[in-house]
Amino acid sequence: MPDNAEIMRNELGTAPGMIFSRNGLTCYVMPGVPREMKAMMTAHVIPRLQKQSGGRAIKIRNLMTTGVPESTLYEQLDNLAEIEKVVRVAFLPSLFGVKIRLMAVADDAAEAEARVAAAEKLVREKIGAAIYADEDIPLEEAVARLLLERGETLAVAESCTGGLVANLLTNIPGSSKYFERGVVSYSNAAKMQLLKVPAETIERHGAVSAETAQSMAKGVRDLAATDYGIAITGIAGPGGGTPQKPVGLVYVACGDEGEIVVERHTFANDRLGNKQRSAQAVLNLLRKQLLKKQP
Amino acid sequence: MPDNAEIMRNELGTAPGMIFSRNGLTCYVMPGVPREMKAMMTAHVIPRLQKQSGGRAIKIRNLMTTGVPESTLYEQLDNLAEIEKVVRVAFLPSLFGVKIRLMAVADDAAEAEARVAAAEKLVREKIGAAIYADEDIPLEEAVARLLLERGETLAVAESCTGGLVANLLTNIPGSSKYFERGVVSYSNAAKMQLLKVPAETIERHGAVSAETAQSMAKGVRDLAATDYGIAITGIAGPGGGTPQKPVGLVYVACGDEGEIVVERHTFANDRLGNKQRSAQAVLNLLRKQLLKKQP
Repeated sequence: MPDNAEIMRNELGTAPGMIFSRNGLTCYVMPGVPREMKAMMTAHVIPRLQKQSGGRAIKIRNLMTTGVPESTLYEQLDNLAEIEKVVRVAFLPSLFGVKIRLMAVADDAAEAEARVAAAEKLVREKIGAAIYADEDIPLEEAVARLLLERGETLAVAESCTGGLVANLLTNIPGSSKYFERGVVSYSNAAKMQLLKVPAETIERHGAVSAETAQSMAKGVRDLAATDYGIAITGIAGPGGGTPQKPVGLVYVACGDEGEIVVERHTFANDRLGNKQRSAQAVLNLLRKQLLKKQP
Repeated sequence: MPDNAEIMRNELGTAPGMIFSRNGLTCYVMPGVPREMKAMMTAHVIPRLQKQSGGRAIKIRNLMTTGVPESTLYEQLDNLAEIEKVVRVAFLPSLFGVKIRLMAVADDAAEAEARVAAAEKLVREKIGAAIYADEDIPLEEAVARLLLERGETLAVAESCTGGLVANLLTNIPGSSKYFERGVVSYSNAAKMQLLKVPAETIERHGAVSAETAQSMAKGVRDLAATDYGIAITGIAGPGGGTPQKPVGLVYVACGDEGEIVVERHTFANDRLGNKQRSAQAVLNLLRKQLLKKQP
């Protein structure tokens, strides 16, 4: 039995919310309809939490990193002791990168914000290049914002990711402003016919090679007449690997009017993970190229 | 405090498993590494559960349906009372369709299997056409198996799904045997240039129209020289809708050497949901066309 139970009014629907307390712990139960839940959260839950915290303010900032392993970030952040004097720090790794969460608890909101800002500055001094956003958004959204800001356009040529990169980029509303087209050139015929990858390139270096990745990026950019062309070719697995070219070997490329940059990655023996890591790698390469040319 | 606590040996790693019992309920705790968990499940947990069940056997069959709403399936299954005499039935709806779960509990495995088989037959009599698999696999895997069995190939032209259909099809290992290429023709230029959709078709009927969907399916099949060409064009939202063509309007098309079939769908105001429902719709259309021509 709870020590206390109350009903929260639902201003936008019929299902009420509930508040239970027991042994000093409080559970807030809200309806599942997002609109109703958000209104109830704002009107009832947050004011109670603020009151309960004795007016103390909490500020959280998520610094989103990708492309650098957690252990490397940790080594590079040799000022962590200093950072932890002003905020609590959490490293939250996933397939997509490491989220660094900074949390400040202070007597008022301005103080909490100042502490988070100071900590963010210290983090950026050490690992700024790995941070793609200061809020919890996926990499494709950060890249989309850069392209939209600059009014630039993109075309994608995919082999092992099989459409995943185009799919991620078109998950963002308004993507038609920067995403012109994608080609999923799964067969060699498609690579040669649509992307004009020379047959000799595939014969000499293989479909999974730096040369083919480069040629695909150039080919799709030429075909679509966009500012950028990106490409991915690799061996997602579980089949198709050889001793020289094992499952998980992936080349990603990014081309603009000036140059085509290629990166080689070796991931694991996990088809879906390899598709996701490859997508993340090519989007991060594009992000780096975009930032190089920062106006 | 539990009434009983035991350790389960881990033959493949260092983290042991645990068994707690209290008030007749038992909780099995296993390591998170899939390989270790599966070995422990097989060696320790399943034998205990079998013993605990007094030797009674449980058989579950999942019949996967798509494209027909739960309420319609329920109406069509007017023999449900008969089915429920031999198995327990659960309707489990999701964005992708309705999973119909049949569960038989019997004195031995043969009896449980016989009951599930009898129930499946009764279900198939009424709604057989909506069932794409008798195990819990996604629709793209069922379609992939049909294509592999027949040695047939596929190319995909996508507009509003933005690469999702290609991505789903290439999630299946070995997909290069049937998936030749995909084109994400997001811009009208890409539709005209790569898929040879006539400018007049887009001008007269719009990029989101039965005529454009049909022309995209034909175009990608011709381009790739595959057995099948499928296409999707629609308004995923949140922007881009008009009173005549609201957000959620989608056309899907499937062409083979004989005909091109087009379906019109109206989904909701939810970009990611619309992408997924559209992908499911075009894959189901392809499935139906494949089954029409069953050898």
